[in-house]
Amino acid sequence: MNANVAAAKAALSHLDIEGNDAAIRANSRDFFWYSPVLKARLDHVVADFVVRPRTEAEVIEVLKVCHAHDVPVTTRGAGTGNYGQAMPLAGGCVMHLKHLDRVKEVHPGRVICEPGVLLKDLDAACKAQSGQELRMFSSTWATATIGGFIAGGSGGVGSCTWGALRDLGNIIRLRVVTMEAEPRILEFRGEELARVSHAYGTNGIITEVEMPLAPAYDWVEMFVGFDDFMKAARFAEGVANEDGILIKLASVFEAPTAFDYFQRVKPHVTEGTHLVGLMVAPHSMDGFLTFMARRPDARMVYRSDDNDWARGPGPVFEYGWNHTTLRALKVDPSITYLQVRYAFPRHLELVERIRNDFSPEVLQHLEVMREGGKVMFAGLSLVKFTTEERLDEIIHLHEAAGAMIFNPHRYTLEEGGRQTVDDRQLAFKREADPKGLLNPGKMIAWDDPDWGYDRMYAWPGLKTAE
Amino acid sequence: MNANVAAAKAALSHLDIEGNDAAIRANSRDFFWYSPVLKARLDHVVADFVVRPRTEAEVIEVLKVCHAHDVPVTTRGAGTGNYGQAMPLAGGCVMHLKHLDRVKEVHPGRVICEPGVLLKDLDAACKAQSGQELRMFSSTWATATIGGFIAGGSGGVGSCTWGALRDLGNIIRLRVVTMEAEPRILEFRGEELARVSHAYGTNGIITEVEMPLAPAYDWVEMFVGFDDFMKAARFAEGVANEDGILIKLASVFEAPTAFDYFQRVKPHVTEGTHLVGLMVAPHSMDGFLTFMARRPDARMVYRSDDNDWARGPGPVFEYGWNHTTLRALKVDPSITYLQVRYAFPRHLELVERIRNDFSPEVLQHLEVMREGGKVMFAGLSLVKFTTEERLDEIIHLHEAAGAMIFNPHRYTLEEGGRQTVDDRQLAFKREADPKGLLNPGKMIAWDDPDWGYDRMYAWPGLKTAE
Repeated sequence: MNANVAAAKAALSHLDIEGNDAAIRANSRDFFWYSPVLKARLDHVVADFVVRPRTEAEVIEVLKVCHAHDVPVTTRGAGTGNYGQAMPLAGGCVMHLKHLDRVKEVHPGRVICEPGVLLKDLDAACKAQSGQELRMFSSTWATATIGGFIAGGSGGVGSCTWGALRDLGNIIRLRVVTMEAEPRILEFRGEELARVSHAYGTNGIITEVEMPLAPAYDWVEMFVGFDDFMKAARFAEGVANEDGILIKLASVFEAPTAFDYFQRVKPHVTEGTHLVGLMVAPHSMDGFLTFMARRPDARMVYRSDDNDWARGPGPVFEYGWNHTTLRALKVDPSITYLQVRYAFPRHLELVERIRNDFSPEVLQHLEVMREGGKVMFAGLSLVKFTTEERLDEIIHLHEAAGAMIFNPHRYTLEEGGRQTVDDRQLAFKREADPKGLLNPGKMIAWDDPDWGYDRMYAWPGLKTAE
Repeated sequence: MNANVAAAKAALSHLDIEGNDAAIRANSRDFFWYSPVLKARLDHVVADFVVRPRTEAEVIEVLKVCHAHDVPVTTRGAGTGNYGQAMPLAGGCVMHLKHLDRVKEVHPGRVICEPGVLLKDLDAACKAQSGQELRMFSSTWATATIGGFIAGGSGGVGSCTWGALRDLGNIIRLRVVTMEAEPRILEFRGEELARVSHAYGTNGIITEVEMPLAPAYDWVEMFVGFDDFMKAARFAEGVANEDGILIKLASVFEAPTAFDYFQRVKPHVTEGTHLVGLMVAPHSMDGFLTFMARRPDARMVYRSDDNDWARGPGPVFEYGWNHTTLRALKVDPSITYLQVRYAFPRHLELVERIRNDFSPEVLQHLEVMREGGKVMFAGLSLVKFTTEERLDEIIHLHEAAGAMIFNPHRYTLEEGGRQTVDDRQLAFKREADPKGLLNPGKMIAWDDPDWGYDRMYAWPGLKTAE
């Protein structure tokens, strides 16, 4: 297949096309550089051009033109993903959905909007209209888009109550455009949602989303300190198991994460402080403080509604989820991370064991989640990177201990997920992207169905560095 | 202590006092008659007079006057409790709080009101003001009061999401008046709430409550039918474990409960139909129907938003919790019930074992609850009553199997609870009701600290039948 980039670009020249090389380069990158492994392989990746459609009709036009000229299309929102989701491995067209940012309808319990609206702006619109907000969002709330969150994310702030994005009920409806000679518009609900959610835009482009909402409260944000790590972990897990206490976030940071990497928090903690970050509904604060008073080892370091800090820390959720790694990276560029699943009922035992084996090379950073109705932990461990071999060894030792890894040092859906083919996504790609032009190189099952996962997949089509 | 009833009544004659004997008798009764054991012992119980204060100041006046004249005071709301909570065992004064029905303030996530407001009216006020409603309510929502629910209830519709009333955060604040020469007004939060919540008014009178709220949705109410009982139980448990599907009710009714006792449902089921009753948020219906489609054994019998029933069943929650027993009793007066705790993680196994041992003498009626963050079952089993001895035997066999019983055939706090002294409630009674005049006979710890729970407690002060 020979892409005729020039012809496609010419045919789309009446749209908002980015011509500046520096801007094209910037729009060809996401947060893949959290991973030294991906940085070594993808740093040179760049699209041939960037187009920013203003309407669904323009999205269809882009897909149709690129289909006609065999030009790959990699779709992006803000590009805040860490798995290289939005990296255009084969060059071609990057389609940026920032102009599709309309909030169309807000109803009790749900919102209908376009994919390019920022999470922050979507929450603001829902709050203004009816005191509602998204059930969950990524820690990149201020800059990320709802479409990017759905196509490239898995959960986040709010998952301690509502579970993961993939759970039934956490996405209501997606409107999707296919990449065919005549693109079709499809509406997915229920089982069909799994075809395109968390598919990196490999098999269809989301042009409208319908998401469930929860009440927007003036969440009280807190940091609680501990001298003992497992007490901190049990505290976070315990508060999430209090059915009457409504929370939106419970993060656990092993010492010295707070002291070394949280600059505004540093004056208020010591090197030995293990920190728990929390968001609690204001009407649950009495219950929370009662819970806390029963645990005399817990001490309040910060609360957003009552503190004397000269410089506030900003939103507590911007210390959690992937922002923890970001803060650590800024101080120590050799830090990278892992995504770990500490499943119920072994979650506490597994965390303790793995910390004993790896600290301080791997520092525990836990996010409380619900999975199948049970409180457990997602780990976004901070890893002091030395070599790829050692990183792989650490991963294998986690897996051997029973902690599943969603490897953020891989750019394919399978390797960043459960290392198995998702038949629903593959089947839909066959139907919706017969030429394989959507975000190429990200779905192993499409390119190499017999891949054995014994080593890192290297997509043959990846453009080499010049 | 000699009660001077006439003097107290005279001193309170300027208040709203009930003089009619039939009305006094009616106001001296609650739903104790669900239990043949309590019916045999308490049917004759009657107060000397009934007073209905209009304000907190009048409540204080009643307590002060009755204290001065050594007159017992039993406080009641609508009297819909089943444990004889509101039965004035020693006669004296019944204080009815129906006039204290003001909704004072509604804020995001919480409401402040008086204790005598009906649950139904409280929900209506919160919904009208800001689209909110109580997190949980008893199935007697249409007739019961919020104060009665707090003083005499433990949970209900909504507990599948929010846990029990006693859980931290499910009551925010209670304002309480003591029964002393000079009654004091106290405000309780946090740990202090346990002193008076679910204390049957034995140690203080609630004059104001502050409760957490949740969003009010137009819940879709459903009945789902199964041929296999354990499939029905697992379905109800499973949907409650779906973190992204918001529910307010999941009840399970063993066959032939629906066919025999649910008259408007009967034409739509068979004798062998095991039924699940549900309330699902409208924006969770897609997720719910997806969940259901994965279980081909489940068939939709009724949904409130889409049905062709000539006569609707009314609210589905009026088939659950204690309304199940009520419906069965109306058809078969020999039916009574048990309250069973099937605790996680043995809940399903225990239900199956106990059903195998006792069905059809004991029919399973389960309500999905959360306890300590885990989905489990409260059982409100329907029991075909024969003798007190057999009932006690059934209870002992449940306990031997590991299923805790909250015995609804007892009128004391301890026997209806965990058969242990609640030191917080006892200590506060010593402080707030030194003469022991509040709802006498309901707290064994007060009257007989060394009671051994080997047989049913019979309060010596209980007035004998004439």
